[in-house]
Amino acid sequence: MIMKYINEFTEGDNIIGIYLCKQKNTATTRNGKEYENLTLADKTGSINCKIWEPNSMGIGDFAANDYVEIHGKVTVFNGALQMSIDRLMKAQDGSYDPKDYLSVSARDPEEMFRELKEYINSVQSPFFRLLLDSFFTEDEAFIKSFKTHSAAKSIHHGFMSGLLQHTLAVCDLCDFYCKHYPKLNRDLLITAALCHDIGKTRELSEFPVNDYTDEGQLLGHIVMGVEMVDEKIRSIKGFPALKAVELKHCILAHHGEYEFGSPKKPAIIEALALNFADNTDAKIEAMIEFFDNFPNVDPSHPWLGFSCIFDSNVRRTK
Amino acid sequence: MIMKYINEFTEGDNIIGIYLCKQKNTATTRNGKEYENLTLADKTGSINCKIWEPNSMGIGDFAANDYVEIHGKVTVFNGALQMSIDRLMKAQDGSYDPKDYLSVSARDPEEMFRELKEYINSVQSPFFRLLLDSFFTEDEAFIKSFKTHSAAKSIHHGFMSGLLQHTLAVCDLCDFYCKHYPKLNRDLLITAALCHDIGKTRELSEFPVNDYTDEGQLLGHIVMGVEMVDEKIRSIKGFPALKAVELKHCILAHHGEYEFGSPKKPAIIEALALNFADNTDAKIEAMIEFFDNFPNVDPSHPWLGFSCIFDSNVRRTK
Amino acid sequence: MIMKYINEFTEGDNIIGIYLCKQKNTATTRNGKEYENLTLADKTGSINCKIWEPNSMGIGDFAANDYVEIHGKVTVFNGALQMSIDRLMKAQDGSYDPKDYLSVSARDPEEMFRELKEYINSVQSPFFRLLLDSFFTEDEAFIKSFKTHSAAKSIHHGFMSGLLQHTLAVCDLCDFYCKHYPKLNRDLLITAALCHDIGKTRELSEFPVNDYTDEGQLLGHIVMGVEMVDEKIRSIKGFPALKAVELKHCILAHHGEYEFGSPKKPAIIEALALNFADNTDAKIEAMIEFFDNFPNVDPSHPWLGFSCIFDSNVRRTK
Amino acid sequence: MIMKYINEFTEGDNIIGIYLCKQKNTATTRNGKEYENLTLADKTGSINCKIWEPNSMGIGDFAANDYVEIHGKVTVFNGALQMSIDRLMKAQDGSYDPKDYLSVSARDPEEMFRELKEYINSVQSPFFRLLLDSFFTEDEAFIKSFKTHSAAKSIHHGFMSGLLQHTLAVCDLCDFYCKHYPKLNRDLLITAALCHDIGKTRELSEFPVNDYTDEGQLLGHIVMGVEMVDEKIRSIKGFPALKAVELKHCILAHHGEYEFGSPKKPAIIEALALNFADNTDAKIEAMIEFFDNFPNVDPSHPWLGFSCIFDSNVRRTK
Amino acid sequence: MIMKYINEFTEGDNIIGIYLCKQKNTATTRNGKEYENLTLADKTGSINCKIWEPNSMGIGDFAANDYVEIHGKVTVFNGALQMSIDRLMKAQDGSYDPKDYLSVSARDPEEMFRELKEYINSVQSPFFRLLLDSFFTEDEAFIKSFKTHSAAKSIHHGFMSGLLQHTLAVCDLCDFYCKHYPKLNRDLLITAALCHDIGKTRELSEFPVNDYTDEGQLLGHIVMGVEMVDEKIRSIKGFPALKAVELKHCILAHHGEYEFGSPKKPAIIEALALNFADNTDAKIEAMIEFFDNFPNVDPSHPWLGFSCIFDSNVRRTK
Amino acid sequence: MIMKYINEFTEGDNIIGIYLCKQKNTATTRNGKEYENLTLADKTGSINCKIWEPNSMGIGDFAANDYVEIHGKVTVFNGALQMSIDRLMKAQDGSYDPKDYLSVSARDPEEMFRELKEYINSVQSPFFRLLLDSFFTEDEAFIKSFKTHSAAKSIHHGFMSGLLQHTLAVCDLCDFYCKHYPKLNRDLLITAALCHDIGKTRELSEFPVNDYTDEGQLLGHIVMGVEMVDEKIRSIKGFPALKAVELKHCILAHHGEYEFGSPKKPAIIEALALNFADNTDAKIEAMIEFFDNFPNVDPSHPWLGFSCIFDSNVRRTK
Repeated sequence: MIMKYINEFTEGDNIIGIYLCKQKNTATTRNGKEYENLTLADKTGSINCKIWEPNSMGIGDFAANDYVEIHGKVTVFNGALQMSIDRLMKAQDGSYDPKDYLSVSARDPEEMFRELKEYINSVQSPFFRLLLDSFFTEDEAFIKSFKTHSAAKSIHHGFMSGLLQHTLAVCDLCDFYCKHYPKLNRDLLITAALCHDIGKTRELSEFPVNDYTDEGQLLGHIVMGVEMVDEKIRSIKGFPALKAVELKHCILAHHGEYEFGSPKKPAIIEALALNFADNTDAKIEAMIEFFDNFPNVDPSHPWLGFSCIFDSNVRRTK
Repeated sequence: MIMKYINEFTEGDNIIGIYLCKQKNTATTRNGKEYENLTLADKTGSINCKIWEPNSMGIGDFAANDYVEIHGKVTVFNGALQMSIDRLMKAQDGSYDPKDYLSVSARDPEEMFRELKEYINSVQSPFFRLLLDSFFTEDEAFIKSFKTHSAAKSIHHGFMSGLLQHTLAVCDLCDFYCKHYPKLNRDLLITAALCHDIGKTRELSEFPVNDYTDEGQLLGHIVMGVEMVDEKIRSIKGFPALKAVELKHCILAHHGEYEFGSPKKPAIIEALALNFADNTDAKIEAMIEFFDNFPNVDPSHPWLGFSCIFDSNVRRTK
Repeated sequence: MIMKYINEFTEGDNIIGIYLCKQKNTATTRNGKEYENLTLADKTGSINCKIWEPNSMGIGDFAANDYVEIHGKVTVFNGALQMSIDRLMKAQDGSYDPKDYLSVSARDPEEMFRELKEYINSVQSPFFRLLLDSFFTEDEAFIKSFKTHSAAKSIHHGFMSGLLQHTLAVCDLCDFYCKHYPKLNRDLLITAALCHDIGKTRELSEFPVNDYTDEGQLLGHIVMGVEMVDEKIRSIKGFPALKAVELKHCILAHHGEYEFGSPKKPAIIEALALNFADNTDAKIEAMIEFFDNFPNVDPSHPWLGFSCIFDSNVRRTK
Repeated sequence: MIMKYINEFTEGDNIIGIYLCKQKNTATTRNGKEYENLTLADKTGSINCKIWEPNSMGIGDFAANDYVEIHGKVTVFNGALQMSIDRLMKAQDGSYDPKDYLSVSARDPEEMFRELKEYINSVQSPFFRLLLDSFFTEDEAFIKSFKTHSAAKSIHHGFMSGLLQHTLAVCDLCDFYCKHYPKLNRDLLITAALCHDIGKTRELSEFPVNDYTDEGQLLGHIVMGVEMVDEKIRSIKGFPALKAVELKHCILAHHGEYEFGSPKKPAIIEALALNFADNTDAKIEAMIEFFDNFPNVDPSHPWLGFSCIFDSNVRRTK
Repeated sequence: MIMKYINEFTEGDNIIGIYLCKQKNTATTRNGKEYENLTLADKTGSINCKIWEPNSMGIGDFAANDYVEIHGKVTVFNGALQMSIDRLMKAQDGSYDPKDYLSVSARDPEEMFRELKEYINSVQSPFFRLLLDSFFTEDEAFIKSFKTHSAAKSIHHGFMSGLLQHTLAVCDLCDFYCKHYPKLNRDLLITAALCHDIGKTRELSEFPVNDYTDEGQLLGHIVMGVEMVDEKIRSIKGFPALKAVELKHCILAHHGEYEFGSPKKPAIIEALALNFADNTDAKIEAMIEFFDNFPNVDPSHPWLGFSCIFDSNVRRTK
Repeated sequence: MIMKYINEFTEGDNIIGIYLCKQKNTATTRNGKEYENLTLADKTGSINCKIWEPNSMGIGDFAANDYVEIHGKVTVFNGALQMSIDRLMKAQDGSYDPKDYLSVSARDPEEMFRELKEYINSVQSPFFRLLLDSFFTEDEAFIKSFKTHSAAKSIHHGFMSGLLQHTLAVCDLCDFYCKHYPKLNRDLLITAALCHDIGKTRELSEFPVNDYTDEGQLLGHIVMGVEMVDEKIRSIKGFPALKAVELKHCILAHHGEYEFGSPKKPAIIEALALNFADNTDAKIEAMIEFFDNFPNVDPSHPWLGFSCIFDSNVRRTK
């Protein structure tokens, strides 16, 4: 069945399909009757929905962030589209493709992950290799999470596999730096690039929620990443203490400035290089995503408005 | 033997005594002869010394930061006192009292430690108690280090047992806050107060060196303290994850501002209270120590000059 | 008669009761008829009200910030509750309890004031005692105002007797500091703590208005407090000039930073201590009040959102 | 007798003359003998002097900041000129001209004061006139001090009558503004211009000391100026409260920014104008004085180095 | 015909008149019919208008920023006035007075320009005169543009001939400075004052659009002004390189601070003076315009609210 | 003749050789005799020299920044080496190799320039090619200057051909970015990379002086570079205005922040990318050069001290 996307809904449509329930709460009408208030979403948008008879036969159990199969009718209320739902049940795994509901990387995660593994294989230091393998080869739960996670709730790489895409781009940049500046210790820098944002797998919850976790808000992905590295290193006998400290410093310092949450400024050259690679990819990607939010711009008014990240009005190059 | 303090030396004195060797390096005279260049110190000051015959019989092996027993003669060179040393050997443990050489807390460390233990005993939560005991009751090496460490290389509490004195003061302030603001979770706050600066036992080396370690410079005592807590918690079965995260957050946020090295700002009320306790004791003590550096001030010119910490000229209250 | 609070109003209610008139203005309907537009409030909320026949018999004279006894009917307009009032007259003093209309300190003002007087009695210096008595014992108008004033229009201690509660808390903290740091001059510090915010009695108008006065906006409570102290000191023969200057400095510097409106940074230790006491109580109370604004939080989403004061998301400790 | 200026001293000179004693302290030679260590100065420079026989017949009583008549001989020590003094006595008033010793305004103080009085006479408001007269016509001590005071210890207008010269320039600028922007209230602005820095007569001590007073450091000239205005206004029956507040606001806000010590930012247009007049004269005069410190600049290297005030290298216009 | 201003429109009016079309776009009704959505404006306000039959006989061609002569009827929709237009054609030049539609300087542009020319004639240096004449005497297109341009899109001098009025005020201030501070090079300063904002003729488009141009956003009026000066200087044979550089420096540095877009801080005294003149006129005018936005203020609530430019609440002087 | 480097001089040496005269001034002995005071330098250091008989036969004409052939004798004065020169004449071009006197790039300038030309040849846009050729192919004086210039007086790339080396590195980074982020307009970015620092050829004078020019200090290389581009573009008929503006924007914005002298923040993606390329190469190179200043570091004290650029202590990676 071809999916009907939410941005195609018009008044009067009868909709049958699977959508992601982003929010759900119970409300009461003026005359005291309970009803359910939902937000259903797909990758094209979202719509406010009502279940006026929540306890009727056709309405199954479900919760926020479930995929639900519904039957409803599109109406107009106060000038906005709304859907009344009379049947709803949780969708079965496999009956839908998450890519229809969530924004995803333009690149194939498996292909990106293979490229990532090549970087791991290029690391010569046996201890760094052991550490990297303990994450990216042996830790199945971590690998699964790392492949699908976003790199942010919003701003940049805030889509499925965004963390993987960003990590790979940072590796690419660092690899290029190593060729250009031979004084850089490639093993340290590539290892740090691979690990710099692993804390995000715990700072942000899995899709479709993709929101800050309690622990994430209290500790932040920088410190959480250091803890994760620390934990793995403990299990690697003979890991050189000095190398562990330098690696952890690179992770701590990769935001470059105190006000961006790094408790230390880069004090060794690989930490400096990692900071530039991270920042370069984050900002360039953020500007590309900013442009993507304005797909159709009037060429006679090409300016897209003020961007807080860039502290400037921005526009596409002509 | 009554010690002759360095600030009492005058030209022509023959000195026999034990002093702390702060620095040592080998130099060469214009005519190519090697000699040793030393700085000897006690708590009253320091003096530049020369060993013109470093390979002679009377000169034993020694290194920087050793206590050395010397025989020398005080001369004047370029208007400053200098000592020529003809005999030197490492002093035996027990033959000197470190308090003659290093600044120490005005309070007795054992007494302060007993007060600290009372705070530990006042914590009701069994898991926090286990954690605190794992540091302050069971870990002998930690206890030994914690009792003598400074809280800083300079600035405030930069003396022996300064870390203990500061930690106790922070506990006192937090204890008072708990009485005043009943919404504070006392167990969490007292535990956080006790642990907030434990990372300093690794960030700074032991006396007499008392300087930043390599790891200390790269990671900082805030993250190191979290790691130390993390390590102990792992060994406590069933430690509630949520409590661990809140405690670690308090430690991370205790400097209060990004620019002071906290990667997170206080997000819970105990973190906020800890930040105030830490800052209050640090700054008030820093001003007291600033005054102590000017013991004899002309009452008609009571101002002590500009203090960077306080961004102001300061003076004693009359 | 049991008062019906505004948050209990529902459509169709006939209301008879006394409410505080926060705003009042005259408007005109499309067909040119004048009516009165009011905001009535109590401590639980506020409601927009209309007097469609402002010149009718049942409508007496009144002004904004009056307590008014009304008869009205609750309706719904554009989805919000509204009240049509057909009878209204100014309420008589004594016929209502301001605590039903304004937020007030949780503590009894008289009890707090007694505690404050004990601090005054503990001051040894006769001149500081004379000064404190000239405010807190002899100046009836000041005492009356001080007991009921808020410490702010909003943010922290923005309720009746908030100024008294905050001043007492600052005294408590300073008293504790004096025990802990014997170098503090207790007489100076306690006197400064008692006087530090007295300028707020003129910077903010009395309840129920509790808004910045013209003078308050142009001069600020810091300078106004110094002027008030200056005025009293002039009438105390022989008051030592030096003590007057130190006290005024403590008041001027109690915000600690230029950007918070202090024209001087703390230059003596009592000014520093006062700054910490003021800031500690203000911020901890502000966080408590922030929590109080979210009485019912879903435990699975405990974060309360971004707080500008704390520059962070905040949440209750679990 | 033609004065021999210090910048003309050469080795071997025998000097008889009157100089200003800027500093004086007692020292001890290595062999335990007391001697006096002096700094004598005139407007061309200063010289270190020794009185090796302080208790001899020829050495009278004197103190720092006295003008002293001396007999001495110029020698060279460690490459710098030094003077040995064998006779010294306090100079009599009238036997010297302070202008030989202190930098003074290029303009005649009496002439400047006459211009100032014209501004006072141009003020129409009777209350502002009474206030201005109470300072500039009736208060002899104030007038004497105001005429000779500097406007700063250094930086700009740090010379005799600098306060008068700066105040007059600020009046000139404000007068021009009033012609250009008719919305400005001239009476308020001219009164504020005349009073804006009167606190400096108490913040800085009289020449030859010209240093911050204790009160000056603790309160600052902004608040002190407001207090002085406050004091005079109290004695003027019927002074309009509103005008007093607006005037005091202008004084408080005249530094324009919190970080420059103004506890309030300009909130009325005269305060804004005063801030610009004060800042314009201060900065332009500071640059002129900066140039005057480099009288002879090599035209091929006209840049005068980095100026902290201007946060830039500066050079004369060619 | 007496114009009916938009702020006089009431429901049911039939309007015939000329208005400025600020915006125009095509929309579609729910049932798929196209209509035109317009904003018409005059100097008193603006009104949303609809052309329900855009292809009818009475509707001529027109575009945004055209003056259009219309026939329409005023209705009320959702509580706001709206106009349905049934006839519309572009207005002929000369049939309307732009001053009815756009805010304009209170002064006559020709009179201001004559005053400007007097400043030009007062410049002695022949090369600066040639440069000034090349703009203000010979370049007709520039003169036409300069006379009508605003100095800003909003904030200060954002009206017709605002650029001319501001430039003249800056010249007046600089001229006064030259009299007061003889060290200023008048020729350089007056020339710089005249040229400092000429780049705004290209940074902002002509009225009625008065918006940032593409080039304006990418380069800014400071650099564009330097380029314009550079271009003219090239055509003046023998223009002294040094004078050209000093003049360009004054233009570059006239915003005074990096964060305000000046790539250089004032390094010569004329640049400093120009910065003060520009800032003084801009800020005082901005406060006057701020007041003008609140023509009728309740004297009992004279405060006009928070102004971002002044970082303060502001009010009129009483 | 093998050159004797200054760091090899010892007391008593008779020196014959060619050195660079960095400074020269005339002084007078105490007894009134004139002599010359010189600083001679080579790449290993510098030495203070005296010509006691400046008017003698053996002393030819010369000026600061000349290479001079001298005969002198090394002595010791006040503990430092000094040279008395009795013969001196200007060295002939070709008789010395500047690399012995100035620090130079480690790479061959001609080879780097060839690589630069390849980037030019890779630009497809004919107008950008014309522009680039007008600088790098046709303008001999520019090419000569560009090949030898430094990129800074100090800090990073402050050596001969440093500008070329830095420009090439920025091109390399931008070229890599273009492969990674296909949305970048390669022609614009490579052209901007090649031109971004051309203003430095005028901001800094040629070696051996390598100091800021008068124009450089007043205008800065960013604006000067835009002017140079502007000048060449004028001579290219039909150069698209839009492309010119985008290119100039990239140059203006390449420092990224106002406080670093960019009058505009990056508003298009190529400006953003150029900013990252410039900053990445500048900072990484600066850290490498920082390390090079400490060739021999004690491995037990590897920290090199505080670096202002990096706002941190730094150390080599172990």
